[in-house]
Amino acid sequence: MEAFSDGVFAIAATLLILEISVDSPSQLTHIWPAYLAYVTSFLTIGIIWINHHHTVSLMGRVDRTFLFVNNLLLLTIAFLPFPTKLVGDNLQKPGERSAVLAYAATFVLMAVMHQVWWQYARRGRRLIGDNVPESALRSVDLAYAPGVVIYGIAFLVAFASPLASVLLTFAIAAFYLPSAALFDR
Amino acid sequence: MEAFSDGVFAIAATLLILEISVDSPSQLTHIWPAYLAYVTSFLTIGIIWINHHHTVSLMGRVDRTFLFVNNLLLLTIAFLPFPTKLVGDNLQKPGERSAVLAYAATFVLMAVMHQVWWQYARRGRRLIGDNVPESALRSVDLAYAPGVVIYGIAFLVAFASPLASVLLTFAIAAFYLPSAALFDR
Amino acid sequence: MEAFSDGVFAIAATLLILEISVDSPSQLTHIWPAYLAYVTSFLTIGIIWINHHHTVSLMGRVDRTFLFVNNLLLLTIAFLPFPTKLVGDNLQKPGERSAVLAYAATFVLMAVMHQVWWQYARRGRRLIGDNVPESALRSVDLAYAPGVVIYGIAFLVAFASPLASVLLTFAIAAFYLPSAALFDR
Amino acid sequence: MEAFSDGVFAIAATLLILEISVDSPSQLTHIWPAYLAYVTSFLTIGIIWINHHHTVSLMGRVDRTFLFVNNLLLLTIAFLPFPTKLVGDNLQKPGERSAVLAYAATFVLMAVMHQVWWQYARRGRRLIGDNVPESALRSVDLAYAPGVVIYGIAFLVAFASPLASVLLTFAIAAFYLPSAALFDR
Repeated sequence: MEAFSDGVFAIAATLLILEISVDSPSQLTHIWPAYLAYVTSFLTIGIIWINHHHTVSLMGRVDRTFLFVNNLLLLTIAFLPFPTKLVGDNLQKPGERSAVLAYAATFVLMAVMHQVWWQYARRGRRLIGDNVPESALRSVDLAYAPGVVIYGIAFLVAFASPLASVLLTFAIAAFYLPSAALFDR
Repeated sequence: MEAFSDGVFAIAATLLILEISVDSPSQLTHIWPAYLAYVTSFLTIGIIWINHHHTVSLMGRVDRTFLFVNNLLLLTIAFLPFPTKLVGDNLQKPGERSAVLAYAATFVLMAVMHQVWWQYARRGRRLIGDNVPESALRSVDLAYAPGVVIYGIAFLVAFASPLASVLLTFAIAAFYLPSAALFDR
Repeated sequence: MEAFSDGVFAIAATLLILEISVDSPSQLTHIWPAYLAYVTSFLTIGIIWINHHHTVSLMGRVDRTFLFVNNLLLLTIAFLPFPTKLVGDNLQKPGERSAVLAYAATFVLMAVMHQVWWQYARRGRRLIGDNVPESALRSVDLAYAPGVVIYGIAFLVAFASPLASVLLTFAIAAFYLPSAALFDR
Repeated sequence: MEAFSDGVFAIAATLLILEISVDSPSQLTHIWPAYLAYVTSFLTIGIIWINHHHTVSLMGRVDRTFLFVNNLLLLTIAFLPFPTKLVGDNLQKPGERSAVLAYAATFVLMAVMHQVWWQYARRGRRLIGDNVPESALRSVDLAYAPGVVIYGIAFLVAFASPLASVLLTFAIAAFYLPSAALFDR
C-alpha cells in the first residue's frame, strides 16, 4: 500500500507545475495567483504525505475496507492539480468565486477522507499495532481533528473574499500544518 | 518487476487528472462526465494494482515470457487516461457512443491481459511459489474469472446507452471489484 | 541510482499516453499511427528497463563517471515521448520523413548511450561484482551489441519509407528485443 | 522522506519533455533552444538528486523543521519544468530576457534552499549520524558552497546575454557540477 500511496503523493505534487502556463514572458509577474496556488497545494500535499506515512507506521495490519478507503483518499489528493489550475487561472478575474470554492471544497473533501481513513483504523484499535501506546493515537487524533473545520472555514471565507480564502489555505500549509503535523513526535 | 509495475500503476492513476479541463469556472458542474470518468478509472486502477500486488506475492519466480506479458498488461493500463478523457469530453454529446466504446474496449483488453498474465503464471504452477496452497490459487481464479465477461457486458451496453455503460463500469469499480478483490484473503 | 532510474523509466513510459490526442471520437480509427508509436515506444522502454535492471545487478560498485553516464542514458529515454508524439501526429502526412528520422535517431542515441554505459562498467571489469562470471558479461555483450546497428538500419529505412521504419522499430520491440533481452538468463 | 524526494526528482526530470512542442516536423532543428534547456535542466536535476541522496546518507535523524525545509527544496525543484519551457519557447525571441531571468532565478532559489537545507542539518551536527567524520561534512560544504554564487553569476549574465546565461548554466551542469559533486567521495 505504501508504494502506491507514496507514488500518488509525489506525482500529484510534481504534476502541479504542468498546470501553470503563461502567454508571454512579459506576463510572468501577472500570474502570481498561479504561483500562490502552486505553493499552497505543493506544501499541503507534502505535509499530508508526512502525516500519512507516520500514521501508517502505527498500523500492524490492513484490511480490505481500509485499502478501499485509502484509494478514495488518494483519489481526492490526485484531484488537487485540477482546482489548483482553476485558482491560478481565475483568481482576481470574473470566475474567481467558483474556482476558489472548488479549491476549498477539494481540501474539505481531503480532510474528511483523511479523518474517515484514520477513524476506521483507530476505532477499537482495529488496525493498530499491538505495541503502539494510546498516547501515540491521541497525538494523531489531535493532529487530524481540526482539518475539516479549518478547511470548512476557508470554504466559507471564499463567499466573502476568494483571495482571502486562498491566503488562509496558504497560511494553514505554511504555519499551522507544520506545527500540528506528526513530523517527529 | 514490482518497482516498474508499481510506478506505472501510480503514474497512470495520477495522470488521469491532467485530462480534465474546463473552459470557465461557471462550467464546473456541467463537466460531471469528466468527474465520473475520473473516479471510475482511478478506482479501477487502484483495485487492479492491489490484485496485481497480491498475485505477484504468490509467485516464486518469473521468466522471460512473463515479464513480456507483464509489459503488455502495463501497456493497457497506462493507456487508460486516453479513453478516460474521451468519455469526459464527449459523454452526453454527439460522439459519445464511439468514446464509450473505446473506454469499454480498453477495460475488456485490460481484463483479457490480466487473465493471460495470471493463467501463464498459474498453468501447471509454472511460476507459483512452492509453499502456496491450491486454495490461494483458486481464490485468484475466482477473482479474475468474471472480469472479461462483465466488461464485455459494459461494452455491449454502450451500443444501447453510453451513459449506462459508464455507470455500469463505475458500479463495478465501486461495488463489485472491492468485494471480489483479493484485498486481504 | 536504481530508485531514480526506475522512476524515470516508469514515468517516461506512462507519459507516452499524454501525447495522444484526437479531435473527435469519429477519428479514433484514423489515428492508428499514434497507437503504433505508443505501443512501440512503451514496449521498448519496458525491455530496456529490464535489461538495465539486470545489468546493474552484475555491478559491485559505481563511480562518479558512471553515474553521470547513467544520467545521460536516462536523458535519452526521457526524451522519447517527444518524437513518439511527432510520429503519431505526422505519419502518413507531409512531415512524416522528418518525424520518423527524429524518432529513429532517438533510438540510435539510446542504443549508443546504453552501449557506452555498459562498456564503461565492463572494461577491465571496472564496476563488475567480484563473483560475476565472465559468461554473464558475454551474455550482456551479445544482448547489447546489435542495438546501434539495428536502429541505424531503421534510421536509414526512414529515407525510403517512414512507415516501414516505424514498423521495423515495432518489430524489434515485439519480436527481436524480447528474445535478445536478458530477462531470465 | 527519501521515497517522496526520489519521486519528486525523477518525476520533475521526466516531465521536462512534456514542455517541448513543435508546430511541424520541418521546424525540428529550429527549436534547438528547447533541446538546450531540456538537457540543462535534466542534467542539473540528476546531479542535485545524487548530492541530495549522498547527503541524506550522512544523517542519523530528521526533525520536523528539516522535513519542512526539505519540502521547500523539493518545491523549487518541481518548479523547474515551468521556466525550462519559458526558455525553450522564448530564447532568441523578443521575450528572451525575462524568460532566462526566471530560469536563472529558479536555479538561484534551488541553490539557496539546498544550502539552507544542508546548513540546518550540519550546524552543531544537529542531524548528522554519530559515526560520520568531520571530513565528510567539509566535503559536502565544499560541494555546496559555490552554488549560490555561480547561479547568481548566470542570473547577472542574463541581463547582458540571455543565450550566454543558458550556455553557462548548461556548462555548470555538464562540466562543473559532475566534478564538484559528491558522487563517490
